[in-house]
Amino acid sequence: MKTLKVALLGCGNVGSQVARILRDDAESLASRVGARLELAGIAVRSVDAPRDVDLPRELFTTDAEKLVEGADIVIELMGGLEPARSLILHAIGHGAAVVTGNKALLAADGPALYGKADAAGVQLSYEAAVAGAIPILLPIRDSLAGDRITKVMGIVNGTTNYILDEMDTTGAQFADALADAQRLGYAEADPTADVEGHDAAAKGAILASLAFHTDFDLNQVWCEGISSVTAEDIAAAQEAGFVIKLLAIAEKIGDGADGGVSVRVHPTLLPRRHPLAAVHGAFNAVFVEAENAGELMFYGQGAGGTPTASAVMGDVVRTARRLVLGGPAAPGSATGRVPELPMDKVTTSYYIGLEVSDQPGVLAAVARVFADNGVSIETMRQTVPADGGGAAAQLRFVTHRATEAALAATVEAIRGLDVITSVTSVLRVEGV
Amino acid sequence: MKTLKVALLGCGNVGSQVARILRDDAESLASRVGARLELAGIAVRSVDAPRDVDLPRELFTTDAEKLVEGADIVIELMGGLEPARSLILHAIGHGAAVVTGNKALLAADGPALYGKADAAGVQLSYEAAVAGAIPILLPIRDSLAGDRITKVMGIVNGTTNYILDEMDTTGAQFADALADAQRLGYAEADPTADVEGHDAAAKGAILASLAFHTDFDLNQVWCEGISSVTAEDIAAAQEAGFVIKLLAIAEKIGDGADGGVSVRVHPTLLPRRHPLAAVHGAFNAVFVEAENAGELMFYGQGAGGTPTASAVMGDVVRTARRLVLGGPAAPGSATGRVPELPMDKVTTSYYIGLEVSDQPGVLAAVARVFADNGVSIETMRQTVPADGGGAAAQLRFVTHRATEAALAATVEAIRGLDVITSVTSVLRVEGV
Repeated sequence: MKTLKVALLGCGNVGSQVARILRDDAESLASRVGARLELAGIAVRSVDAPRDVDLPRELFTTDAEKLVEGADIVIELMGGLEPARSLILHAIGHGAAVVTGNKALLAADGPALYGKADAAGVQLSYEAAVAGAIPILLPIRDSLAGDRITKVMGIVNGTTNYILDEMDTTGAQFADALADAQRLGYAEADPTADVEGHDAAAKGAILASLAFHTDFDLNQVWCEGISSVTAEDIAAAQEAGFVIKLLAIAEKIGDGADGGVSVRVHPTLLPRRHPLAAVHGAFNAVFVEAENAGELMFYGQGAGGTPTASAVMGDVVRTARRLVLGGPAAPGSATGRVPELPMDKVTTSYYIGLEVSDQPGVLAAVARVFADNGVSIETMRQTVPADGGGAAAQLRFVTHRATEAALAATVEAIRGLDVITSVTSVLRVEGV
Repeated sequence: MKTLKVALLGCGNVGSQVARILRDDAESLASRVGARLELAGIAVRSVDAPRDVDLPRELFTTDAEKLVEGADIVIELMGGLEPARSLILHAIGHGAAVVTGNKALLAADGPALYGKADAAGVQLSYEAAVAGAIPILLPIRDSLAGDRITKVMGIVNGTTNYILDEMDTTGAQFADALADAQRLGYAEADPTADVEGHDAAAKGAILASLAFHTDFDLNQVWCEGISSVTAEDIAAAQEAGFVIKLLAIAEKIGDGADGGVSVRVHPTLLPRRHPLAAVHGAFNAVFVEAENAGELMFYGQGAGGTPTASAVMGDVVRTARRLVLGGPAAPGSATGRVPELPMDKVTTSYYIGLEVSDQPGVLAAVARVFADNGVSIETMRQTVPADGGGAAAQLRFVTHRATEAALAATVEAIRGLDVITSVTSVLRVEGV
């Protein structure tokens, strides 16, 4: 039986689990691949750092370049831009197949790397880069190859989903739910990349590139996090039958010269019966709409060493089978160029919560502002305080699809009305 | 650009949509495949029967054998065992790649067909045979290639899910919900294959074969339908925080000589927060547990011409790419033999509802029966009638995992107790 040399770059959370699986499942992997997978070495910064998994010391090296040069398959799990990028290019240059889980690098520089791999005729796989263990890239690329995707909505960040789910379940404020998530290890000490949506934006760019066969990078993603979502927003959403989720959305809007793809990350209201509403805790899910297939959803663990290692090993086995059996490398994702649609051209539904003085004619005045700005109301809900005196009444609107510009003008004009005490929330809505 | 000749066998619900996509998306498909897909002909029983899609009369033929002989790719969408089986074998014999959505044939005879295709080195794909548009076979086979699946639970029949969802939402009895489903076209005039679980059992056999790399056929699947599920069962389940779903379950239980794979279809209680509980209406979903990946779920439309055509076209594009680029056919699913585990060796949790006379010592007597039969109680819930006099009290138990044999003995002994008015329901539970 043939042997394929595997070089592992990085031995953190995910890397150590990949090393464990390569060691413990060697027999079973060999029978599935048709060749032995030999872990030739593990490149790390410090050979003597403590590891999650007990591995022979002689596997470790600080000379990543040399390790790469002798490998058939290079698994890059270092994260970050450099030296990961240089080492992947080095591997491609030496004709090695590459498996990576590096979402930051792919979001910043994916198209260039896919291009180099295609040109060299080597395989570059990255299932682990988006939504951890969930097989999403392969189904989007291969299973839907005969269909056309029109929209992708993903819960792709477990930290923010945990926090929002906690707020939804317990009524906690954001700061308390975040502290809880930090205590339980779901959020990092500096939670910025998660709670401000940067991590979700990187995954959104990769999903959009793949779903629409084009190149998106992080700078083209509109990004709002969840730090301004309040317990009051969540309570009001609940009352109206919604749940608030942080979604990465990639959507084809319009046709021809006016059309394009919008990629955006923001807190979003979803109806409680929507499949994404049932994604609890730190789980991830990606909801896909395709012309013929209709609605699809892929659900699973989005992070964690062992689940992510499963996605890495899926890529490794497929890559190795191809090396054993021959045949062409899978084609890269980008085959065309679809224009990016800027946020002010995007249309979406909105939820608007208002506190108003309880007097006749308020609703008529507000409705007039919506109409003047061309924003059409889908549902309205009025709550009048029980005691009838003093306390403010609540008005809650869900609009039909409107542009950001029209919505902003509407909210601005509503704020100017005498009868309005305050605009309590403005949130985007999907799935209605 | 090269041209690949495509033969379509059958032009019903799915076939007519496949023909439409081949016609309308010809340009886009050609650019994705790297070759033109030419619809060479459509084999049907009657050339002049009415069709859902307007197609040129000269495409139709009643000579399926001849059509197959000139084809590069044969799409079999006739359904049923014959002549589908003979035509697929004829295609394999002529070196044509085959795409089929025929679950009845694969459940009855899949392993033999996979073997013949492997031996001939031709591709045989069947994504559309299970769960319609949901890409489930490819992820199980390829994405989880580096992992080990331990359990698969699927809502794989839209008719029964629609009926159960309707009963859960409206409180309707089975017969009324079925009549409703028939009126809306979700159930056939003779609903036996759906409501008695036969359709789900066929899909369960295919899923089990794929997930456990072995050969299962329909006769090895334990099968109970939903016709005996009552509105009272559903109400009691709701009160205890559960929903009732018809699940096809394939599960590895035990190790070594005592171990094996159980494949079964039966109504099952699931906690309301379980991802499968959020699958509403006629939608399908497959929940997968793997050693490293943990919990995964795949959700989408399980039936319907257009969604199923999407799955067929995914297979067609992948098959065609392979024909254009060269490379080996995908390996068949079965690589080993895992023993089937008979139902009496399966352990699962149970929900048991009892009506009891409201007198001291009843709970102790019932608990004693559980203990004597080695069945351990996880939760108990007692409802005493508000008026205190006359009406029966309710006892509801969820057990830890126990064998069918132990459970049957327990229920038998409970029925014999003086204090028991009736055993109102005995249902299996998953996801607790």
